[in-house]
Amino acid sequence: MNYYAAPVRDIRFVLEELLEFGSLSLPGFEETSPDLVEAVLEEAAKLAGEVWAPLNASGDRQGCTRRDDGSVTLADGFAEAYQAYAEGGWNGIGVSEAMGGQGLPEVVASSVQEMLHGANMALGLCPMLTAGAIEALAHHGSEAQKATYLPKLVEGTWTGTMNLTEPQAGSDLSKVRTRAVPQEDGSYRLFGQKIYITWGEHDAAENIIHLVLARKPDAPEGNKGISLFLVPKFLVKEDGSLGERNDVTCASIEHKLGIHGSPTCTLSFGEKDGAIGYRVGEEGRGLNHMFTMMNEARHKVGIQGIGVAERACQHAFAYALDRVQGRSPRSGRGDCPISDHLDVRRMLLSMRARTDALRALALTCAAQLDLARHAADEGERAAAQARVDVLIPVIKSFSTDQAVEIASLGVQVHGGMGYIEETGAAQMLRDARIAPIYEGTNGIQALDLAGRKLQRDGGAALEGLIEQVEATADALKASSEHAALGESLAGGAADLRAAMAAVLEAGADPEQGADAVQAYATPFLNLAGHVLCAWQMGQAALKAGAAIAAGSDDPFYQAKAQSADYAIRQWLPVGRAQRAVIEAGMVSLAAFDATAQ
Amino acid sequence: MNYYAAPVRDIRFVLEELLEFGSLSLPGFEETSPDLVEAVLEEAAKLAGEVWAPLNASGDRQGCTRRDDGSVTLADGFAEAYQAYAEGGWNGIGVSEAMGGQGLPEVVASSVQEMLHGANMALGLCPMLTAGAIEALAHHGSEAQKATYLPKLVEGTWTGTMNLTEPQAGSDLSKVRTRAVPQEDGSYRLFGQKIYITWGEHDAAENIIHLVLARKPDAPEGNKGISLFLVPKFLVKEDGSLGERNDVTCASIEHKLGIHGSPTCTLSFGEKDGAIGYRVGEEGRGLNHMFTMMNEARHKVGIQGIGVAERACQHAFAYALDRVQGRSPRSGRGDCPISDHLDVRRMLLSMRARTDALRALALTCAAQLDLARHAADEGERAAAQARVDVLIPVIKSFSTDQAVEIASLGVQVHGGMGYIEETGAAQMLRDARIAPIYEGTNGIQALDLAGRKLQRDGGAALEGLIEQVEATADALKASSEHAALGESLAGGAADLRAAMAAVLEAGADPEQGADAVQAYATPFLNLAGHVLCAWQMGQAALKAGAAIAAGSDDPFYQAKAQSADYAIRQWLPVGRAQRAVIEAGMVSLAAFDATAQ
Repeated sequence: MNYYAAPVRDIRFVLEELLEFGSLSLPGFEETSPDLVEAVLEEAAKLAGEVWAPLNASGDRQGCTRRDDGSVTLADGFAEAYQAYAEGGWNGIGVSEAMGGQGLPEVVASSVQEMLHGANMALGLCPMLTAGAIEALAHHGSEAQKATYLPKLVEGTWTGTMNLTEPQAGSDLSKVRTRAVPQEDGSYRLFGQKIYITWGEHDAAENIIHLVLARKPDAPEGNKGISLFLVPKFLVKEDGSLGERNDVTCASIEHKLGIHGSPTCTLSFGEKDGAIGYRVGEEGRGLNHMFTMMNEARHKVGIQGIGVAERACQHAFAYALDRVQGRSPRSGRGDCPISDHLDVRRMLLSMRARTDALRALALTCAAQLDLARHAADEGERAAAQARVDVLIPVIKSFSTDQAVEIASLGVQVHGGMGYIEETGAAQMLRDARIAPIYEGTNGIQALDLAGRKLQRDGGAALEGLIEQVEATADALKASSEHAALGESLAGGAADLRAAMAAVLEAGADPEQGADAVQAYATPFLNLAGHVLCAWQMGQAALKAGAAIAAGSDDPFYQAKAQSADYAIRQWLPVGRAQRAVIEAGMVSLAAFDATAQ
Repeated sequence: MNYYAAPVRDIRFVLEELLEFGSLSLPGFEETSPDLVEAVLEEAAKLAGEVWAPLNASGDRQGCTRRDDGSVTLADGFAEAYQAYAEGGWNGIGVSEAMGGQGLPEVVASSVQEMLHGANMALGLCPMLTAGAIEALAHHGSEAQKATYLPKLVEGTWTGTMNLTEPQAGSDLSKVRTRAVPQEDGSYRLFGQKIYITWGEHDAAENIIHLVLARKPDAPEGNKGISLFLVPKFLVKEDGSLGERNDVTCASIEHKLGIHGSPTCTLSFGEKDGAIGYRVGEEGRGLNHMFTMMNEARHKVGIQGIGVAERACQHAFAYALDRVQGRSPRSGRGDCPISDHLDVRRMLLSMRARTDALRALALTCAAQLDLARHAADEGERAAAQARVDVLIPVIKSFSTDQAVEIASLGVQVHGGMGYIEETGAAQMLRDARIAPIYEGTNGIQALDLAGRKLQRDGGAALEGLIEQVEATADALKASSEHAALGESLAGGAADLRAAMAAVLEAGADPEQGADAVQAYATPFLNLAGHVLCAWQMGQAALKAGAAIAAGSDDPFYQAKAQSADYAIRQWLPVGRAQRAVIEAGMVSLAAFDATAQ
C-alpha cells in the first residue's frame, strides 16, 4: 500500500504539451533533446520509486540518533540511498557544466526534485540544502573557494547547510548574534549557536559545508553587520584532502512532528577555540547573499509540497479503489470500492486536481527561471526574472498550504485507518506540515508578494501574468465545450486584478501603508494562487480537449479534462472569495487587541 | 507555556447573553439557578485546568501500554485524574436525577464537556463513551439491566464503550460479523473481533461495560440481522458485586497520530468459551439502538473539536504575545511581540473568531436539546428536535474540520517552534485530526444532512433556522454600526437558501437523485456551517454593541465585536463561495474515473 510511482506521465504532459519544451530551444540547451529529457525522467523515477521511496516509512519510524560524541546516525539505508543518488550524478543535473554539473534545464531538475521529495521528503532535504550552498558559493564565493568546495558539493560527496536561525533570530535575522572573530591569516573563528539546521550533522557524506550568518565583533547592529561565512565540518587541506575536525558540533537534534528521517540540529560553533570559517562575498552583505540562494530554495520548498501531495494522492487513490464498503449509489451494487461514493470521489478529485495544478504552475515558474538565465535577449531575461520574482512566493506558500490540506484529505479518505500510523497517510500530513514554516514562513512569503514584489513595479509583472490568464480564458470561451471554464477563469482574473489594485492603493496610502499591505497579504496570495493554478488547468483543458478531439483514447486526457473542470469550477470559487475578504477591509485586524482575551 | 484555562467568560456570555438562560426556565430545571450554573462552571474549570490539563502533554508522550496479559496501563496520573472526575460527581451532571444524576441542563453539561476536552481530549473520551452507554441503556435496556448497570455507569465507577467497527465493517455497519450465540439461560456467547474501540481496556475503573453490535447465527444478512449486546468486562453477580472475568480481551492497542493517552483497542470476544453478553433492546434493532446514542455523541465530538480549538487559541495567543521578533509596522518600534504583526494578528483573530462562533452554535444546539426533552408543549419539543436533527451533523463536521484548521494555524503562529513536539502546538493538530473521522466521518455527516435530514422534511427545519439568521441580519442592518455585517449575513442566508433549493431539487430529480445529493453534500454542509456560525456572531455583535453602548468597559465586549466583524466579513465569504461550487454542478464528479490515473 505504501507505494510511490513518480508521476512521469503528468510531468511529461506539462513539459511537452503545456510548456511545449520551450526551455530546450534556449541557448546552452542545444544538446538537450526531448529524448534525453524523457530518459532522465525515467531514470529518476526508478531511483525515486525503487531506492528512496521504500525508506520513507522506516525512516519516519526510526528517525535519527545523536550519539554522545555529537555524531548523528541516520535511519537505516539513508546513507546508502543518498550515496546512490550522488553516484548516479543526480546532484549536479541542474548545475552548469562549467561547475561540473550536467547543465540540464531547470524544468528538468525541478521535475526530478519533485520525484525525490515525493519518494522521501526527509532525504530530499539533504540535496536541497546542498543546492543552496552551491548557489551561494557560485554567486558570491572567491575563485579559490569555488575551486576548493564546488566540485565536491556538485558531486554530492560533500553536502551543504544553511545556518541562519538562532533562538532570538527567526523571521527577523537582523538579530543574529553568532560572532566571527577575524584571525591574522584572513580566516575567522566563529562562536555561537544555530538552531533548526537541516541535515546539520549526519553520516552520509565525507564532509559538510556549513554556510553561516554571523557578525564581526565590531560590526554594526542590524542587517548591515551580518556577513556570510563558510565553515567546513572537516577543514580542507591545500591538496583538497580532509584535515582536522573543525570546532562545530551537533549539540542536539529536534524531536519533530514529521520529517523524522531528516536530522534537524542545534549546532554549536566554537565550544573550544572557535570554528574556523572563511567569509563568503562582501562584508556586511551576508543576508543579501543568503537571500540569493533562498529565493530558489523557496521554489524548491513549493515543489517539495507538491511531491508530498502527489504521494498522498497516490496513497488515497490506491486505498479508495481497494477498500470495499457500502452500496454504490451509481450501480446500486453492494460492496463497491469507496471510490464509487461521490463524496469520496470529490475528495480524490480535489486532491488530484490541486496537485496537478500546483505542479503545472511550479514547472511554469521553472521554465521562466530557464528563460531568466538563458534567453539570448537581456530584456527577455529581465522580464522572465520579474515573473519569477512574483511567482516564487506564490509557489512556496500556496503549494505548501495546499499540500497540508491535500495530505489531510488523504487521511480522511482512509477513514479510521488514516489515523493509524502504520497506514502511512498520517506521515504525509506530519511531513507536509513543516513546509509552510521553513524557508520563510508563508506569512513572510505573502508579505514579500504583496509588499516588496508588488509595490516595487506597481504590479506590472503580475499584470502581465493576469493578461496571460485572460488569454487562456478567451481561448476557453471560444470553444463551446469549455465556455463555462472560460467564464469562471475570466472572473478569477478580474478578481485578482481588482484585489491587486486594492493592495496597491492601500500600500500607497500614507494613512494605511504597511498596515494594509500586511493585513491583505495572505488573502491576496491565496487568491493569486487559485487564479494562477486555474490558469494552468485552463491550458490543460485546452490541450486535453484537443487530444480527445484528435481521437486520442489515452484515459490520461479524460482524467485531465475532469481535473481541470474541478479545479476551475469547484476550487477556484473558494479562492475568488478572497476578493470579498480584501474588499471588506482590515478594520477588525488593526483594532484587534490580542491581550483582551 | 502549555497551559489551559477553561473559557468560563465566553461560555457565560453564550449561556447568559446569547441564550438568555432559556434552558433554566424549562420544567424540571426549577432548582437550577444562574448562580448554581456559575458555580458549576467555576468548579469544572478548576478540575479541567488544575487536574486534567497538566497531564495532556505527558499523556501524549507516554501513551498507553498493553501488557502481555492483555491489560492496559494508562499514562501516569490518568487513572487518578479520571477518579477525581468521577468522585466529584461530574459524570452524572447531565443525567436525569431519576437515573442518579444531577439533572443539569444540556447547555451546562456541554459547557463542562468542552472544558474537559480542551484540558485533555484523550482523557475526555472516556466519559464521552460512558455517556453513550448510559444513553443506550436508558433508552433500550430492560429494567433489570438498568438497575444493574446504570448506577455504576452514572457514578463513573464503571465506564462504557461502543463496539461497532470490524475490519470489513466501518462506515457500512451492515457488514458486522461478530456472532452472538443464544444460551439456554437467555444470555448469549459472543465471538468476534472489534477494532478501534476507544477506552476498550484500561485500569481507571472497576469494570467496563461494552455495548456490542453482533448478529445471531441465524440472523438475516444486512442491517436487520444486527442486535445490540451488553458485555461486561467482569460479570456482575446478583448482589451487584463483581464476579468472573469475561472472555473479552484486548488483543492490541493502536499506534495513532494523536490522542495517545486514549487506549484504542482491538477487542477479541470469545477466544475461549465465548464472551457472555445480554441483548439490549429488540432483536434486529441493534443499529437503530446504537444510532440513538450516536446522535448525541456526534454533538459531543463537535464540542470536543471546539475544546481543542480553544486550547490551540490560548496556546497561540500566549506565544504571540510573548515572542519578540521584528519591527512593529504599527508603532515602528523594534523588538515587538509578533502579535503586533498584522499577518500574525490575522491568524490569531481567525482562530479566536472561529472558535467562539463554533462554541456559540454548539451551545445553541444544546439549548435546543434541552427544549426537545423538557419543553411542556409537545409541538415545541418536536420542533426543537427537528432543529437538533439538522444542527448535529453541522456541529459534528464543521466544528471538527475547523478545529483541524485552527490547530494547524496554531502551529503556524509558532513558526519553527510549532513543528517541535515539546512546544505542544503539534499535539493539538495531531489530536484534533481524529475528530473528523470518528463517530461517523464528516462525509457521512454531510450525507445525513443533505440526504436524510433535508429530504425528509423538504428543508422545513433548516428553513426555520435560515429565517432566524435573517432576523438577526435585519437587526444588524437596523443599526448603522452593524449595517455591513447585516448585509453580509443576509447574503449568506440567501446563499444557503438557494443552495438548499438546489440540493432538494437535485435530490428529487429521478435522473440525478442520490448521486447529486452525494456530490453536493459536503459543500452544502460547509456553507451551512459558515452561515450558522456567522449568525451566532451576528447575535454576539448585537449583544457586545449593546453592552459597549451601555457604558461597559469590559474589554471582552470589544474583543467580541472584533471577532464578530472578522467572522462575518472575512470568514463567511469563504463559505459563501460554496454556493457557486454547488451551482457549478457535479458533471466532473460523476464522470471522474478514479482508475484513470
